[in-house]
Amino acid sequence: MSEPVRIGLLGRGTVGGAFAALVSERAEAVEAATGRRPEVVGALTRGEGDFSDILERSDLVVELLGGTDPARQYVLDALRAGRPVVTANKQLLAQHGEELFAEARAAGVQLRFEAAVAGAIPIIRVIQESFGVTEISKVFGIVNGTTNFILTEMAATGAPYEDVLSRAQQLGYAEADPTDDVTGADAAAKMAILARLAFHTPVTLEDVAFEGIEQVTPDDLAYAKELDLSLKLLGVAERREGGISVRVFPCFLYSGHPLAPVGGPFNAVMVEAPAITEVTMSGPGAGGPETASAVLGDVVSILAGDAPVHETRTTLPVVSDVTSSFYLHLEVADRPGVLAKITQVLGENEISVKSVVQRGIGDDARLVMVVHECLESRFASAVEEIARLEELRAAPRSIRVIEEEFV
Amino acid sequence: MSEPVRIGLLGRGTVGGAFAALVSERAEAVEAATGRRPEVVGALTRGEGDFSDILERSDLVVELLGGTDPARQYVLDALRAGRPVVTANKQLLAQHGEELFAEARAAGVQLRFEAAVAGAIPIIRVIQESFGVTEISKVFGIVNGTTNFILTEMAATGAPYEDVLSRAQQLGYAEADPTDDVTGADAAAKMAILARLAFHTPVTLEDVAFEGIEQVTPDDLAYAKELDLSLKLLGVAERREGGISVRVFPCFLYSGHPLAPVGGPFNAVMVEAPAITEVTMSGPGAGGPETASAVLGDVVSILAGDAPVHETRTTLPVVSDVTSSFYLHLEVADRPGVLAKITQVLGENEISVKSVVQRGIGDDARLVMVVHECLESRFASAVEEIARLEELRAAPRSIRVIEEEFV
Repeated sequence: MSEPVRIGLLGRGTVGGAFAALVSERAEAVEAATGRRPEVVGALTRGEGDFSDILERSDLVVELLGGTDPARQYVLDALRAGRPVVTANKQLLAQHGEELFAEARAAGVQLRFEAAVAGAIPIIRVIQESFGVTEISKVFGIVNGTTNFILTEMAATGAPYEDVLSRAQQLGYAEADPTDDVTGADAAAKMAILARLAFHTPVTLEDVAFEGIEQVTPDDLAYAKELDLSLKLLGVAERREGGISVRVFPCFLYSGHPLAPVGGPFNAVMVEAPAITEVTMSGPGAGGPETASAVLGDVVSILAGDAPVHETRTTLPVVSDVTSSFYLHLEVADRPGVLAKITQVLGENEISVKSVVQRGIGDDARLVMVVHECLESRFASAVEEIARLEELRAAPRSIRVIEEEFV
Repeated sequence: MSEPVRIGLLGRGTVGGAFAALVSERAEAVEAATGRRPEVVGALTRGEGDFSDILERSDLVVELLGGTDPARQYVLDALRAGRPVVTANKQLLAQHGEELFAEARAAGVQLRFEAAVAGAIPIIRVIQESFGVTEISKVFGIVNGTTNFILTEMAATGAPYEDVLSRAQQLGYAEADPTDDVTGADAAAKMAILARLAFHTPVTLEDVAFEGIEQVTPDDLAYAKELDLSLKLLGVAERREGGISVRVFPCFLYSGHPLAPVGGPFNAVMVEAPAITEVTMSGPGAGGPETASAVLGDVVSILAGDAPVHETRTTLPVVSDVTSSFYLHLEVADRPGVLAKITQVLGENEISVKSVVQRGIGDDARLVMVVHECLESRFASAVEEIARLEELRAAPRSIRVIEEEFV
């Protein structure tokens, strides 16, 4: 019988527990696939266990602690000691990726992290390996299940954000402190990782502009429905003239868009490149078993053979002002000439209107429109100018739109 | 400068040409990713070039000839000579997989074939590597772009099969001889490959029961629309009690099903397993650049590191009689008691009705129904019995249905 492979497990929360159980359950399959039987030796929690002891007794380290401290030090130490590392820690990679990848290359061992982005969807492997030499132009999608669940529920029930968030917490789709998810910070970390791999350039969390979903109103969702639009929290990493843009923002999609039907806690990521047109992958974005399964896949890959560690090939600047299409929601005085005044301001800023819905009368009059793609800075100036019009009864609200309509 | 990697290219058709062009275009990226610059040495066509000479001068062989003869012999020879092989040849793998994998293992070199199934969608890598130790329960989807284009067009235009086929041929979505595609034989070869990898068991083309789309009428599509159903040619490989079932058949899906919106020449594959729930991948199913891109991805993987060659772990029997849900289209005499008679036959065979649409009067009366999942042999007996009823004006028509309704 061959030597077993000893896995040093750091972290014993939901995912850690699911991973330990999965290793026992699939030990035979792992042995059939790689010739070596896996076993978990020691499990460190934040309070218990000795890291040096676990490191000493393991052939490979799985880091599921979360957070950057002490995870960063443990991963660095493990790599330096020549242990391949598998981690599900998106913040660690988004903030300290450059340092960790350099250490792994120096030590000549693998650093794998499939579970850090999009749960069961093997997007890391596909971007790094299948499309590793493809000139990717854009990676975008729904990479946070909590917010997608909340937006799906808001659209379905018409309930306000706070109520749906409570429900999500009760059902276990949102954490007690949901800040990271609802502000877009979690999605931003994932997009930093995807952008780095897709474009072979250093990207950290600080390069990602992000907005969350706290400001979304049932109102916006209802009006948007009339325009055949549904709302998603999108992460977008794309090449733009002169560099790249990596952002997270709530965004309307037309009903035919491949991401429009992705509901509930599911994630979905699209990769675009001239050579492949577009490839879309969707599936459960989180969950103990799904994440554990992605971690085990990485362990098996390490046992199966060598693979290069990520290395940047270029340094692309982050473009700050990009073009977007927008939904614009205006509460206006019910008075002749309002639409003309507003469209004049838009026209002066070279912004053209794609569609308008005019609703309500008197104190409830609203203009809801979608404008074609324009430079975001120009749109911001136009909205500022519109906000100063005496006909406006409330501050304008705007949300980005992906204009592409699929048949 | 490092030694270049010399690629012996067999086949210089659409894909071969696109691959040679892509190698030049992405040579620098390949070198950045793997440390070695690729170059194509010699290209064999069916008429020209000398295989031994190309083999002699190459480090790695890419087989894009298609067909099994002489491709099988060339691939065996290349493996025996210690050359890793990348192929896009689905028939070769579906018919001679066992022999080729054994040869690759014996020679200790890789045999990769991402482009053989679903074009740009990296389903082979995901099943073999990401889900290599996952207990996959089902792999199914749309793996033939030609037939999906034809069915999408038929549904959209109401035109008959023959007309849409001609149009597909004019547009380059169907070949001059479309037999392989429209009979389901092409999809069957792909499903044999996917089933083998998903279940780690020997599966060849002969194990796959397949039906094509030649019998589909605009009529069926129109009635089905009333039942909220759309038609796809599905490949399904699944674990069934006591073994596996691998089949290709036209099948109706409810509009919420993740595969329902996949239109035109696109492909999509779903993988189901308890540990991952379900992961769906979609994208262009064929095309020169997409296929060439998949081939190059395999070349890069070979250069990047070792990986195990597929090996079966078990031998599962093919289950012949499985359960399915069905759409049943009956042209009946417009006479009282017809529905009662028919449902009685169904009831006696323990088949229950999910929904019925009754349309037309007099000589055009029809009963269109969907029945719940039942053993296919039972359904066949019931339909035989129904066909003998004097009220039937034409032979019954039936098409399988995936009953699952998503919200």
